[in-house]
Amino acid sequence: MDLRGFKSVEKRRDALEKLLSIDLNHIANFSLDEQIASSRNCENMIGVVQIPLGVAGPIKIIGEHNKGDYYIPLATTEGALVASVNRGAKAISESSGAQVMTYRVGVTRGPVFDTSSIKKSNELFKWIKKNPDKIAKVAEKTSKHLKFLKIDVRTAGRYVFLRFYFDTQDAMGMNMATIATEKIVNLIEKELKIKCISLAGNYDTDKKPAWVNFIKHRGFKIWAETVVSKKIVKDVLKTTPQKFFDVWLAKCMLGSAMSGSMGFNAQFANIITAFFAATGQDIAHTVEGSMGITTAKVLENGDLYLSVYLPAVMLGTVGGGTNLDTQKEARSITGAKSSAELAEVLGGAVLAGELSLLAALSSGDLAKAHEKLGRGGI
Amino acid sequence: MDLRGFKSVEKRRDALEKLLSIDLNHIANFSLDEQIASSRNCENMIGVVQIPLGVAGPIKIIGEHNKGDYYIPLATTEGALVASVNRGAKAISESSGAQVMTYRVGVTRGPVFDTSSIKKSNELFKWIKKNPDKIAKVAEKTSKHLKFLKIDVRTAGRYVFLRFYFDTQDAMGMNMATIATEKIVNLIEKELKIKCISLAGNYDTDKKPAWVNFIKHRGFKIWAETVVSKKIVKDVLKTTPQKFFDVWLAKCMLGSAMSGSMGFNAQFANIITAFFAATGQDIAHTVEGSMGITTAKVLENGDLYLSVYLPAVMLGTVGGGTNLDTQKEARSITGAKSSAELAEVLGGAVLAGELSLLAALSSGDLAKAHEKLGRGGI
Amino acid sequence: MDLRGFKSVEKRRDALEKLLSIDLNHIANFSLDEQIASSRNCENMIGVVQIPLGVAGPIKIIGEHNKGDYYIPLATTEGALVASVNRGAKAISESSGAQVMTYRVGVTRGPVFDTSSIKKSNELFKWIKKNPDKIAKVAEKTSKHLKFLKIDVRTAGRYVFLRFYFDTQDAMGMNMATIATEKIVNLIEKELKIKCISLAGNYDTDKKPAWVNFIKHRGFKIWAETVVSKKIVKDVLKTTPQKFFDVWLAKCMLGSAMSGSMGFNAQFANIITAFFAATGQDIAHTVEGSMGITTAKVLENGDLYLSVYLPAVMLGTVGGGTNLDTQKEARSITGAKSSAELAEVLGGAVLAGELSLLAALSSGDLAKAHEKLGRGGI
Amino acid sequence: MDLRGFKSVEKRRDALEKLLSIDLNHIANFSLDEQIASSRNCENMIGVVQIPLGVAGPIKIIGEHNKGDYYIPLATTEGALVASVNRGAKAISESSGAQVMTYRVGVTRGPVFDTSSIKKSNELFKWIKKNPDKIAKVAEKTSKHLKFLKIDVRTAGRYVFLRFYFDTQDAMGMNMATIATEKIVNLIEKELKIKCISLAGNYDTDKKPAWVNFIKHRGFKIWAETVVSKKIVKDVLKTTPQKFFDVWLAKCMLGSAMSGSMGFNAQFANIITAFFAATGQDIAHTVEGSMGITTAKVLENGDLYLSVYLPAVMLGTVGGGTNLDTQKEARSITGAKSSAELAEVLGGAVLAGELSLLAALSSGDLAKAHEKLGRGGI
Repeated sequence: MDLRGFKSVEKRRDALEKLLSIDLNHIANFSLDEQIASSRNCENMIGVVQIPLGVAGPIKIIGEHNKGDYYIPLATTEGALVASVNRGAKAISESSGAQVMTYRVGVTRGPVFDTSSIKKSNELFKWIKKNPDKIAKVAEKTSKHLKFLKIDVRTAGRYVFLRFYFDTQDAMGMNMATIATEKIVNLIEKELKIKCISLAGNYDTDKKPAWVNFIKHRGFKIWAETVVSKKIVKDVLKTTPQKFFDVWLAKCMLGSAMSGSMGFNAQFANIITAFFAATGQDIAHTVEGSMGITTAKVLENGDLYLSVYLPAVMLGTVGGGTNLDTQKEARSITGAKSSAELAEVLGGAVLAGELSLLAALSSGDLAKAHEKLGRGGI
Repeated sequence: MDLRGFKSVEKRRDALEKLLSIDLNHIANFSLDEQIASSRNCENMIGVVQIPLGVAGPIKIIGEHNKGDYYIPLATTEGALVASVNRGAKAISESSGAQVMTYRVGVTRGPVFDTSSIKKSNELFKWIKKNPDKIAKVAEKTSKHLKFLKIDVRTAGRYVFLRFYFDTQDAMGMNMATIATEKIVNLIEKELKIKCISLAGNYDTDKKPAWVNFIKHRGFKIWAETVVSKKIVKDVLKTTPQKFFDVWLAKCMLGSAMSGSMGFNAQFANIITAFFAATGQDIAHTVEGSMGITTAKVLENGDLYLSVYLPAVMLGTVGGGTNLDTQKEARSITGAKSSAELAEVLGGAVLAGELSLLAALSSGDLAKAHEKLGRGGI
Repeated sequence: MDLRGFKSVEKRRDALEKLLSIDLNHIANFSLDEQIASSRNCENMIGVVQIPLGVAGPIKIIGEHNKGDYYIPLATTEGALVASVNRGAKAISESSGAQVMTYRVGVTRGPVFDTSSIKKSNELFKWIKKNPDKIAKVAEKTSKHLKFLKIDVRTAGRYVFLRFYFDTQDAMGMNMATIATEKIVNLIEKELKIKCISLAGNYDTDKKPAWVNFIKHRGFKIWAETVVSKKIVKDVLKTTPQKFFDVWLAKCMLGSAMSGSMGFNAQFANIITAFFAATGQDIAHTVEGSMGITTAKVLENGDLYLSVYLPAVMLGTVGGGTNLDTQKEARSITGAKSSAELAEVLGGAVLAGELSLLAALSSGDLAKAHEKLGRGGI
Repeated sequence: MDLRGFKSVEKRRDALEKLLSIDLNHIANFSLDEQIASSRNCENMIGVVQIPLGVAGPIKIIGEHNKGDYYIPLATTEGALVASVNRGAKAISESSGAQVMTYRVGVTRGPVFDTSSIKKSNELFKWIKKNPDKIAKVAEKTSKHLKFLKIDVRTAGRYVFLRFYFDTQDAMGMNMATIATEKIVNLIEKELKIKCISLAGNYDTDKKPAWVNFIKHRGFKIWAETVVSKKIVKDVLKTTPQKFFDVWLAKCMLGSAMSGSMGFNAQFANIITAFFAATGQDIAHTVEGSMGITTAKVLENGDLYLSVYLPAVMLGTVGGGTNLDTQKEARSITGAKSSAELAEVLGGAVLAGELSLLAALSSGDLAKAHEKLGRGGI
């Protein structure tokens, strides 16, 4: 049965129910705009999946775009996660708050060319270095919201990999970047008679764990840090700064080194997935978001310093799933009006998650939480 | 405002609406069992996020557990994704179908110990090699659904990293594994007087990109392959086997090599995220799922051979979010009764996604799809 | 001019001197056995390169095979290296000595097969699991010094990668392993009608940086550790345990994490290259040897704990360059009679190198050493 | 016995011989300038190790600095290596020759700072972006041969990693870079009151396998390619372009992907080690040199295209071991007068090595070569 043939979500769902002799009553229960969702977000739509939405916070954030107390929406089916972030947020807010900074790297798209020879590859390299203005012009013609930022060029024999960086304002921008890249590719093919093999050549890199994203970044870079006093570490987090540090060193440094990891952290992915699901991001970008480094230090006065560094976070406040009704509402909980503001709230949330989980591990409370809550994965 | 203080989802949401002067009407619209969700899946719950659910297929699968035509539920906000898998499923089904195999590696949990010296680390190593039965016994006492499989031991000086593998039947099992691991850790601490620093020491590795998961695996290993005739490559996929191969080689091999990637594929993460969101998996395990290798080959008769290999897929059919109402319904679309069956359907879905996207790249249709559908990321 | 045509080293060198109008007088100056070297170690031989040989130590080693004071031969052109190891050896010897352990993993060789399908790949997998004795038999027939240990099997679609492990006694054994592997491959091809594409398929992995070697190992695993008292840290190493720890954490942990590294250490490669060059190892195996983890800790009494972990060290005391005259003499300086003993001395040497360089960095002496000695690279 | 106490190489060697009751007669046999070697290249010197020197070639190279036929000096103890490169050079020279290009990235040195906070880290970042001239000035004052090129800045919380790039003309330059970096560090510490923890913070990265070197490079980038006709593939290399391609794909692409490798090649490390040992380079830089990508393609006319890409090659023609007598003579065999020329010859040599080994694997000749030559490792 070709599901594309049906005119409405309801008819398609009905047909599927009959064909498979199943009930999809809950999937049928939704309030988002079917017209928009089925044409822009999801083909062959039959309804929605409901993911429980919890809220952590408030968390005190001192950023460049935000200052004050913020709530963190988290859509998740994994018990203990919201509670974990909530506890971290409390400890942070009762201490110095979360200092957060972000840097907009831009969305990247990376086509690959077959030039036929090293010499020709070098011609392409030189042409690109000489024609940033031409490139910017054709790219920026595709959208008034897109600005060309820069290009990386990498060559292996006759294969040339480009990596374009675009500022796409408050959109995550993968879509815009793809369209702009196609125009640049057309220009290159025409001017240099060099053939593009693929518009996306995995040097972007989109949604695969890759060091190029760690080292050269994409989307936003986010940093957050806090200092938690000995007393709050004890009262709220039930551990000591030294024990916390020992767990961090053994797990986030040595354990990750031992594993061949790109994630020198405790649980970035948990928070990012839940925050992305809540606010309508492309959840698969959790892959990029799971990379990054947590650092800890016992200060001379005995307090605990903690920081997180996320080298490649792809998010936005317009486009994609961000305009769906529940997602828009979830974003309103954060108060963020722009992608940079949203990135700051996320930075605080990730910091809270690290603080709480590393504390739970150092006080031996992880298994207890699992036993109690039926937690399905930290 | 402490959100934990509220007695019901509604009261908590109301309070938040008032506090922030926002409306959360759509978030309030849900049918899943609030009692269960708020106690097991999500603390501080205020409602749900609705994620559009589309269906791709049918796809013809020939596996060990499944044989026949299957539909693939995909929860996503990213336009073009369902259409992409759908097209791939069509091409596969009209050809030889998807041959799928899985291998249950088991869920892993990895505590880290500080033994105080290499000599003591070696004692721990030897004790473990000598006492698999003791370990199995304490582990298996924690749940009748859990079976101890094996342990890896890795040592760096005084730090010893263990990696336990458990068969948790149809549960993804992170929860059970954590509880069982705690008991083993207690046994070790008692018998050897060696201190566990952290129950989870990142040698698991949970939700961070890590080579240990690629090389030693966790959850399921999944393989799928198909042979698509020249004619169907042309008619359905609008390209040729040779062009397809060229894109695969430049992108999935060279582009990923160039990027320092763990993902030698086109879009594993897109399909896994959407399938996990639909069927109630822990979506953050997309990180593990994004790793893996796609291979392509032009056969002597000119047909196209394509395969996917996923070294670490964490999923289940009981526990976590799998019992939520919409998620249970979505799983019923696949017909899968066990985690192994579900893994096979996922294998077919991922294969379809690779086939379709690599074809779109080789025919130059990616940007067109983005322009038409407002696609937010491939 | 075809250099293979010449009957002797001298004639070949003379011809080259004339052809290129150059003098090769120093290259002509050597005492090693030309007959052996030119037939077994180096084709088109024209003489030798002289590499300065220094000696560090004595270093006190407490291992399983060695116990006592050992000297470390290091062939190098890089000023400061021998002095660096020498200083570390002194600090270690005046403290608790170097505790060293090794584990023989065995040399690995990894052919790759094209089976034509997943199903056929699985047949190969099953056959291998069922026939270890058959495999051992054909392998061990090729040499009385070789023992088959185990196999890993990894499959990506129709490609199957095997990884054989052999105990080759005191030989590094790459040569023996290759010959034995060929026989096993012949057996597989014959029994299963499956074609081997390449006898060496990079899943070995030989002389490329690769996580499979870190996580699954090859050759020897080596651990070494020491405790250096506060006083000796101050008197000999001119720093404090805390400063030392800070450098280690920032460099070997965070710096390596940031870099996407397989080497969480300071200078393993320097010591391994020089030790391998001195004792006639295949120096290119420095690639494997450069991987690994150094750990440091300030103990409760204020002393410094330091350890090194080398997951894949390929070395031997027979075969290859080990029998050349100067190399044999250099090995005699260590007193090592077997590959395991030699591995222990190397473990001590690497530990000494880490101790000294990290101390130099923490006391700010690195640049001074470079200025003074014209050091070309640490 | 403290070996530093001896006044001459001979006395030190004599003492060691007596102490250990060993003979070091061959080590005593050398002609290089003891005065220079023992003061600049090797402390506690007792003589030399003799490494057999073979010559491969001639190889036809068409580069930017070289054009014509070149001989390749290789110091090695591993039988078959010189023969392998020699055969590759023959096939290349009888075909189109080796097209070679290089790009001087510059030597890198990377200190790490502890700034105390993200905010302070950002101040450091901004200061650096604003003061390239100041930085260049203090750096370039340390040597008239050094030119400051650029800086990368990477931050994780309070840790800031810098990565300076310097042009050090014909010196490999690690020494000069270290001295210049110290002066920059002093400037930063003085102007910003920020403490440098370590002059070398592993973001350089020196002699550890690391993606930062692959993606951001150090030393030279080298590309080389050739087209070998079907006929020569058959006559000289005993295989076919298609078989060659199949081996390359299975080994250098899939096998390396499977292994978590940074080396998508067959044997870069073998050639680099032997070439570095011959010409007086810091042989430990083989680690960087072992990274890189080989590409192959069967052209439409049936000929074989082959290329190599080396992203990080550290070499020079002055300083370090390059001035030792045998090493200087070995370099004279290449005719190279500058580091860029030498890099081109190396590019040709590496290409020849790949061509020959991949051909041997595809024709099934590897084990035979091992059996015949007692080859200790390919």
